Amino acid sequence: MNKGRVEAFSDGVFAIAITLLVITIAQPAHYDKLAHDLFDQWPSLAAYVVSFIVIGIMWLNHHTIFSHLQTIDRGGFYLNLILLMTIVFIPYPTGVFGEALRKAHDLGAQPGYSNAATTAAAFYSATMTINALAWVALWLYASTGRRLLQAGFPESQRVMSTVLFAIGPLFYAAAIGLAFVNPYLCLSFHAALALYYALDPISRRVGREQAGLTK
Amino acid sequence: MNKGRVEAFSDGVFAIAITLLVITIAQPAHYDKLAHDLFDQWPSLAAYVVSFIVIGIMWLNHHTIFSHLQTIDRGGFYLNLILLMTIVFIPYPTGVFGEALRKAHDLGAQPGYSNAATTAAAFYSATMTINALAWVALWLYASTGRRLLQAGFPESQRVMSTVLFAIGPLFYAAAIGLAFVNPYLCLSFHAALALYYALDPISRRVGREQAGLTK
Amino acid sequence: MNKGRVEAFSDGVFAIAITLLVITIAQPAHYDKLAHDLFDQWPSLAAYVVSFIVIGIMWLNHHTIFSHLQTIDRGGFYLNLILLMTIVFIPYPTGVFGEALRKAHDLGAQPGYSNAATTAAAFYSATMTINALAWVALWLYASTGRRLLQAGFPESQRVMSTVLFAIGPLFYAAAIGLAFVNPYLCLSFHAALALYYALDPISRRVGREQAGLTK
Amino acid sequence: MNKGRVEAFSDGVFAIAITLLVITIAQPAHYDKLAHDLFDQWPSLAAYVVSFIVIGIMWLNHHTIFSHLQTIDRGGFYLNLILLMTIVFIPYPTGVFGEALRKAHDLGAQPGYSNAATTAAAFYSATMTINALAWVALWLYASTGRRLLQAGFPESQRVMSTVLFAIGPLFYAAAIGLAFVNPYLCLSFHAALALYYALDPISRRVGREQAGLTK
Repeated sequence: MNKGRVEAFSDGVFAIAITLLVITIAQPAHYDKLAHDLFDQWPSLAAYVVSFIVIGIMWLNHHTIFSHLQTIDRGGFYLNLILLMTIVFIPYPTGVFGEALRKAHDLGAQPGYSNAATTAAAFYSATMTINALAWVALWLYASTGRRLLQAGFPESQRVMSTVLFAIGPLFYAAAIGLAFVNPYLCLSFHAALALYYALDPISRRVGREQAGLTK
Repeated sequence: MNKGRVEAFSDGVFAIAITLLVITIAQPAHYDKLAHDLFDQWPSLAAYVVSFIVIGIMWLNHHTIFSHLQTIDRGGFYLNLILLMTIVFIPYPTGVFGEALRKAHDLGAQPGYSNAATTAAAFYSATMTINALAWVALWLYASTGRRLLQAGFPESQRVMSTVLFAIGPLFYAAAIGLAFVNPYLCLSFHAALALYYALDPISRRVGREQAGLTK
Repeated sequence: MNKGRVEAFSDGVFAIAITLLVITIAQPAHYDKLAHDLFDQWPSLAAYVVSFIVIGIMWLNHHTIFSHLQTIDRGGFYLNLILLMTIVFIPYPTGVFGEALRKAHDLGAQPGYSNAATTAAAFYSATMTINALAWVALWLYASTGRRLLQAGFPESQRVMSTVLFAIGPLFYAAAIGLAFVNPYLCLSFHAALALYYALDPISRRVGREQAGLTK
Repeated sequence: MNKGRVEAFSDGVFAIAITLLVITIAQPAHYDKLAHDLFDQWPSLAAYVVSFIVIGIMWLNHHTIFSHLQTIDRGGFYLNLILLMTIVFIPYPTGVFGEALRKAHDLGAQPGYSNAATTAAAFYSATMTINALAWVALWLYASTGRRLLQAGFPESQRVMSTVLFAIGPLFYAAAIGLAFVNPYLCLSFHAALALYYALDPISRRVGREQAGLTK
């Protein structure tokens, strides 16, 4: 199995999934009050921005993991496929989340609509939790007994990465809980998590220590 | 004709077809009972999962075949194009299948709707049968008289692969029959076939024997 | 300007345009008579098949042209961009063509609908004519004075290719005329043209002669 | 961080965003007067053409910038991601713009619809302004202190490019103003800007001077 071609295929899937996010923003319904309709779409736009950054960071993460792999085998391919399946799915809950926030805002006084935002936030967070579990599965498969890891990958970083991956699903499960507190807070929490992963303070510190050790 | 560029083009088509599967899941219609509507989509989600794994395995299969080809010629290009045409089509019957199962479940008591699931299952299975025939055509073209095969590809594996490819359409034709027994059973059968191809016990055994022979 | 990266970008656009064709096939409207609705979609399916083969052949053609280019410059890039613009547009008239044939068949007795198929066939053919003109423009730009051609590209083949490219728009303009005779005949003519380009008897003969000359 | 893989990912996103433009053109609503409906779509077609050329030129611009980078770091990756986010978004305002022009033309006599075209033109121009700012951010990050630039990149060109990038948002902000004068004029202005960047007289002159200096 050719690692490079699996990477290229995954890159293609990432690029398409991230681009399909744009079709989750509903077309305006009333062109006779277009400014109002467009402004009304801000929750969809916010959900678009958050999911775009999230998938972008996932791409970077995927890139980093694969750069540490020596090879890829059948098991790794299937776990990677399942991971991609959860990423490709992201535009769906993103679209539902944005639309539900909008509907809850516009029609919140009618029975049922106020629950829509909570349900959508929980659905979005549940998708992210399953995605985080798929990352854990891929990482554990690749790293346990150093099955697919490159010889030069430091053991200390393997342990640290395992801990960091394991924490992921807990954060996202907490986001499910937050959905029931406030759906906007839940979306903000996803944005904060994305920012946290973007800054990535821990793995940077690990990197510096590693660099120090090898010097 | 450059084999590498045909592979890259095919990879792109696979990546897009697998990602377009997400737009086969219908947006919820009633945000005032969103939880119910989302739960109601589970057949679409199941069809999404099955088709995603199926296309992923097809990608792997395509990758394996091309790795055994010495070159690609005009005939091979067109048979590959027809194969891609059947793969790109998969999101359509996938969407119809999921929606038909949902409609049959919700409105099954009304005349016509209970047949929808059966029709959609047969349509999905017929698509897969035609796809399997396209694989047979590509393989036979490439392998007959070892037209496009690499010199090192063992003759015994060529025979075994031909038998395996020839069996494929029979399985999927059987799935058409199962659609008339029960559409959920039919979908499960497709999932089981995917799992079977994923584990791929025969070609693995062949691989081991091959490895033994060459040692 | 890097020729390889322009090729890779073009390949990506081709792969996505060919895959987007599947979303031109309208979802069934009545699940209580699904078999009828699906069968009714056959014109859309026929248009899908024709356009898929057409874009696939265009990709091959593009591949062939670029393999004969020494380099690509700004002018070539923009003419290639305009060519891609006409290819990316193809899913639109394809969808309209299939839908118009279906509507004309189902509602042909009502005023206006019988004209729909003719209009759609002419629209599809006009798109192809403009596309053929974009090919001519790119080829003339690249080949006039051998601006971008590789040194080894035979002069006789340059002349022959120019003639073949120049004939293309005439064929497609004839297809516009055929639309007014019969829209199904028009679609068949496009299929026949695709088949003709797929077999490509002239350039093959040229190729053999070339091979003979250089021997 | 691998510059090549970031480029390949970006190329994929560009290719998909440019191709998704085709789905911004609304399907005809009345097949019994199809010719009229298709002709009515000309503003959508015009918006499609402008946005296609714009994204194509952006791809070329991106290609040029990256060819001058020595490397890419985390900060550059995220600014590139934000840039891609603004590009992927383009199909949305493109679709709204075309549809609003059509609605304003057909229903302009009804209250609200004449404003739709102005609003959509301003929305499209605002998107382009934000996009231009994202270019500025990426360029300033990469070029300030020559952080990511290749050693051979001339200092004079760095200064000139910074000035050119800084002017971009001003042009697009002016386009927002033009939207309130006349939405068609605003679209034409975007087309003119694209043409200007396509011809790129300044950077060409710089290039010639550079070539002269290095001779």
